[in-house]
Amino acid sequence: MSRDVYPEYPPDVSGMQLRNIVTSAQDWSIAHGLAVRPAPTFVSESQDPTTSLAVAAPITLFPSPFPRNCFEDALSIQEAYNELYARIASEESWLKGVVEELVEIDEFMAELWNIHKKVKDEGYVQDLSLGLFRSDYMVNIDPENATSKASLRQVEFNTIASSFGGLSSQISALHKFLLKSGIYPPDVSSLNNENELIESKSARLLASGLAEAHKAYGSGNTSLPKCVLFVVQTPERNVFDQRHLEYPLIYDHGIRTYRLAFSEILKHTHLDSTRTLIYTPPHSPSTPHEVSTLYFRAGYAPTDYTSPDSWAARLHLERSRAIKCPSILTHLSGAKKIQQVLATPSSPHLSHFLPDSTTSSSILATFAPIYPLDNTAAGQHARSLALNRASAANFVLKPQREGGGNNIYRSKIPDFLKSIPETQWPAYILMEMINPPPLKNVILRNGEVQKGGVIGELGVYGVMLWRNKLVGGEHTGVEEVLVNKEAGYLLRTKGDTSEEGGVAAGFGAVDSVMLVDV
Amino acid sequence: MSRDVYPEYPPDVSGMQLRNIVTSAQDWSIAHGLAVRPAPTFVSESQDPTTSLAVAAPITLFPSPFPRNCFEDALSIQEAYNELYARIASEESWLKGVVEELVEIDEFMAELWNIHKKVKDEGYVQDLSLGLFRSDYMVNIDPENATSKASLRQVEFNTIASSFGGLSSQISALHKFLLKSGIYPPDVSSLNNENELIESKSARLLASGLAEAHKAYGSGNTSLPKCVLFVVQTPERNVFDQRHLEYPLIYDHGIRTYRLAFSEILKHTHLDSTRTLIYTPPHSPSTPHEVSTLYFRAGYAPTDYTSPDSWAARLHLERSRAIKCPSILTHLSGAKKIQQVLATPSSPHLSHFLPDSTTSSSILATFAPIYPLDNTAAGQHARSLALNRASAANFVLKPQREGGGNNIYRSKIPDFLKSIPETQWPAYILMEMINPPPLKNVILRNGEVQKGGVIGELGVYGVMLWRNKLVGGEHTGVEEVLVNKEAGYLLRTKGDTSEEGGVAAGFGAVDSVMLVDV
Repeated sequence: MSRDVYPEYPPDVSGMQLRNIVTSAQDWSIAHGLAVRPAPTFVSESQDPTTSLAVAAPITLFPSPFPRNCFEDALSIQEAYNELYARIASEESWLKGVVEELVEIDEFMAELWNIHKKVKDEGYVQDLSLGLFRSDYMVNIDPENATSKASLRQVEFNTIASSFGGLSSQISALHKFLLKSGIYPPDVSSLNNENELIESKSARLLASGLAEAHKAYGSGNTSLPKCVLFVVQTPERNVFDQRHLEYPLIYDHGIRTYRLAFSEILKHTHLDSTRTLIYTPPHSPSTPHEVSTLYFRAGYAPTDYTSPDSWAARLHLERSRAIKCPSILTHLSGAKKIQQVLATPSSPHLSHFLPDSTTSSSILATFAPIYPLDNTAAGQHARSLALNRASAANFVLKPQREGGGNNIYRSKIPDFLKSIPETQWPAYILMEMINPPPLKNVILRNGEVQKGGVIGELGVYGVMLWRNKLVGGEHTGVEEVLVNKEAGYLLRTKGDTSEEGGVAAGFGAVDSVMLVDV
Repeated sequence: MSRDVYPEYPPDVSGMQLRNIVTSAQDWSIAHGLAVRPAPTFVSESQDPTTSLAVAAPITLFPSPFPRNCFEDALSIQEAYNELYARIASEESWLKGVVEELVEIDEFMAELWNIHKKVKDEGYVQDLSLGLFRSDYMVNIDPENATSKASLRQVEFNTIASSFGGLSSQISALHKFLLKSGIYPPDVSSLNNENELIESKSARLLASGLAEAHKAYGSGNTSLPKCVLFVVQTPERNVFDQRHLEYPLIYDHGIRTYRLAFSEILKHTHLDSTRTLIYTPPHSPSTPHEVSTLYFRAGYAPTDYTSPDSWAARLHLERSRAIKCPSILTHLSGAKKIQQVLATPSSPHLSHFLPDSTTSSSILATFAPIYPLDNTAAGQHARSLALNRASAANFVLKPQREGGGNNIYRSKIPDFLKSIPETQWPAYILMEMINPPPLKNVILRNGEVQKGGVIGELGVYGVMLWRNKLVGGEHTGVEEVLVNKEAGYLLRTKGDTSEEGGVAAGFGAVDSVMLVDV
C-alpha cells in the first residue's frame, strides 16, 4: 500500500454535523449556481419537459488536502505549457508527421486533419488562435520510498472544451463559506486556516481570455454588432458551468454571447464574401451578429459528429474569419498521441519546442513515461513490459483514439493484448500508472452522501492567445504571443474505485484545494 | 373598465423569442439563486427525500411598468411609516385599547397579548426593538376620471416575516441582465432604457438591519460567541430568499447566523439566570452561542402554533434578552385591526402618532378607506354600504383575524353577510377596493409560461431599530431611534383573476419595476 502523506482526513463528524453541512452546502450551491440539470434517471423528461429543475453539482463536502509544492509547481509551469502547445499547434510540418501516423487507426483525427488541409488549400483568413487550456495532473508518490517527495504527474492536456472552470470558482467559494461561517466542526486542526483554502478565479479568468480574443479580433469586417459564439451540445446538463463564463463577459466586458447547438451551425450561421462569420439568432432574425470568437464546448468527441453535416459545419467554422477556441490544429495538438510522443523517454520533441532546458526539464518532470506499442525500438520494449504480468502492474493501457473510456489497467493488460490481433496493438499506448497518496473525503451527489477513498485530479487552466506565422499558406510557428497566463485551477475528485473522470457524466465531484506541507 | 395608463405591454414576442427568454431566465435564475424548492405536487418527497432539487422562483419575464410618481412616493414615505409603527408598538396603552377589542374574535391576537402581559409582569430585559417592515401598495386610478393621476393605496403593513427581500434583489438583476445582454427584443421602445429598471438592494439592506441590531446588542452577558438566530418554518420552500439575507451577514459583517425550526426552540435554546438567550447548535453541542437578535420567519400565522409548546416557545423567546425582530408588541402592531383603526375616515389616531401634519397627510394619502362593521356610527354607515349591491361593488370584506384568505369581494358581500349571524359581522372590516390600471405580463412558473392580465403589488422595505421608553415596566413611547431607513422594494405580480398574493404559496411571481411617466 501507499504510504500516508496527508493528515487524518476528513474530520470525523457526527450524523447531526454531517446533516448540517449537507443542508448548508446544498442551499449555498443553489443560491450561487454551483449546480447542474438533473440526470434523466433522477428527473425524467416527461416530469420536467422544459428542464426547469436543477440540483447542486456533485461536490466534496470538504476541500481536499493537496501538497503545497505540487500545487505551486502546477501553477508555475502553466505558462510554459501554454507556450508548448501553441508552438505545437503552429508547427504544421511536425504535427503532420504525428497525425499521419494516427490517420489509419483514428478516423476522427483523420477527418479533423482533412478539414485543416481543405482550409489550407483555400488559405486561412484568421491568423489568431485562442486556447483555453487545462493541464490535468495527479499527485504521485513512490510507494516504495517513504522519504521521497510527492510530485506531479500529468494525466492529459486539454486543448478543447476544458470544462468546470465555472463551477470550480464556486466550489472553492463554498468551502471557504463553510469554514468561515462555522459550519465545519470547530475542533478540526487541519481545517483551521482559511489562507490554505485556495480560491479559483477560473471563471473570470477564462471569460477574460475570451474577451481578449474578442478585442484582438478588432473592429471587424461588417457594421454588424459583434459577439462571442458558444458552440454547445444539447441538451447540456453542465450548462451552469458554461453560463458562469458568459455572465462575466457581459458584466465585466460588455460583450454579448450567444449559444448555438453544434447541430444547428449551418442553419443559423453563414459566411459572407470575406468569410466573415455571421450568426443570425433564430429568436431575433433582424439582428445578425458578426462572430469575433468561436468557443467550442461541443465538437470535441466523435459522438458529436452524427452526420456528414456535422463535418460540413466544422469545416464551415474553420474556414471563417472568427478566432477559433480552438482551431483545428490546436484541437489536434491535444491528441493523446501528441502527449505520448512528448513523453516517450528520450524523445527529442520536447526540447525541439522548448529549447530552454530549464523550461523543458520542468515540464518533463511532470510527464509519466508513455510508450508506443508499435514496431520501433521503444515499442518493442513497451511490448515486453506490457505482456509480463509483474511489470504490467505498473501501467495502464489506453486507446490512442479520442473519446475516453476503455482503459485497461495493470494485470489485465497481458490477457487483453493477447485477445486482440497484434496488428491492432499500435492503436494503444502504455502509460506508467500514477500512485496518488491515500485520501478520504465525502462526496455529495443528488442529496446522497458517500464517504470513502478518493483520488483528486488537479487541472490548471491557461489562456493563450497567439498569432500564427503563415508562410505560403503554411503554419510555421508562433509569430506573436498576445496573452499567456495561468487562469485558475480545478480539483476534481472521484472515488478511488472509479477509473474515469467527468463530474456531470456522473463519476466525479468538484472539489477545492487545501494546501498542506507534506 | 379602467382606462389605459401604461404603454402597450409586454412586447409582442415570437415563439422563438419567448423560448429564448425562458431559457436565459431559467439558467440565470439557478445560477444566481433566484430559486425555490419545488412544490410537492411537482417533485414528491419520495423522489427527492433530501430536498436537493430546486427550480427557478415564479418570475415575470419582463419588468412591469410602474408610475414614477407612485414609486417615488412609496420610497419617500417609508421612513415615516417606520416611525409610525415604532410609535404604535411602543405605546402600550393605546395598543391595549385596540387589541382588547379584538380579543373576543381572534384567539391568536389574544394569545400574543397574553405573552406580552406575562413578560411585562416579570419585567422586560431588552428595550431595543428591531423592525424589518414591508409596506405593500397597489396603484390606484379613478376609473371614472380619465385625467386623474395614478396614486398609491396601501394594501397592508407587515411587521413580521416580511418575505422576498432576498429574491427581489435577484429578479431586478435578472431583468437588467436580459435587457443588457440583448435577450429582450431590440425593437421594444418601452424597454430601451436601463436606467428605468430599478435595482432593489433589499437583500443587503435587510441584512445590514440585522447587523445593526447585532451590533447594538453590545458585548453581551456571557463570554460565548454571539449569533443571529433565524426562527424558521420546516420545510421551507422559500429558503433561498432567507439565505440571501444570511450570506451578506457573514460576508459583509462577519456575523454568524443559525437557522432553528420554530418547533425546536425549546429543545435547543435556554435562558440563563439573566435571561440571556443561549442557542446550542444540535450539530455542535460544544459551541453554544449567545443570541443577539432573533429574526422571525415563522410564528406569524396561527398555523405555526400547533401545540401549547409553540406558545411556550414564543413566551420563552419574548422573555429573553435577545433583540426581537419583531417583539410581540411590534408583531401585534401589524394587525389588520390597527390598519383599519388608522384608516377609518376622520380617525384621530394617525395624527396622534404623527403630530407633524405634512408627514401624517402624506401617509393618509396612501390609505384606502377602511370601515369597521360594528355598532359605532362608522360601523352603521359601513353596514349600509356593504348590504347594498351597488355600493358593495366598490369594496372587499376582510376577516379581522390574521392568517389571510377568505376575502369576500364586491357583489358577493351582501349575500355573504346575510348568511352569517349579525353578531359575527364585527369580525370583518370593509375596505374600499383598489382599481389598478390594466396591465399584462408573462409569468414563468415551473418552466410553464402564462401571459395575461396582471396586478402588481409594490412592497417597500424598511429597517427600524429603536429603544423603547419603559416607565414602571410599561412601554410608553420611543426613547431613541438608532436606525430608520428605507431598504429596497419588492414588486409581486399575480394574475388579475387571483385574489390572494404570496409567490411561494403558488399564486404570484416576483417582478421588478420599470419606471414610466403616466
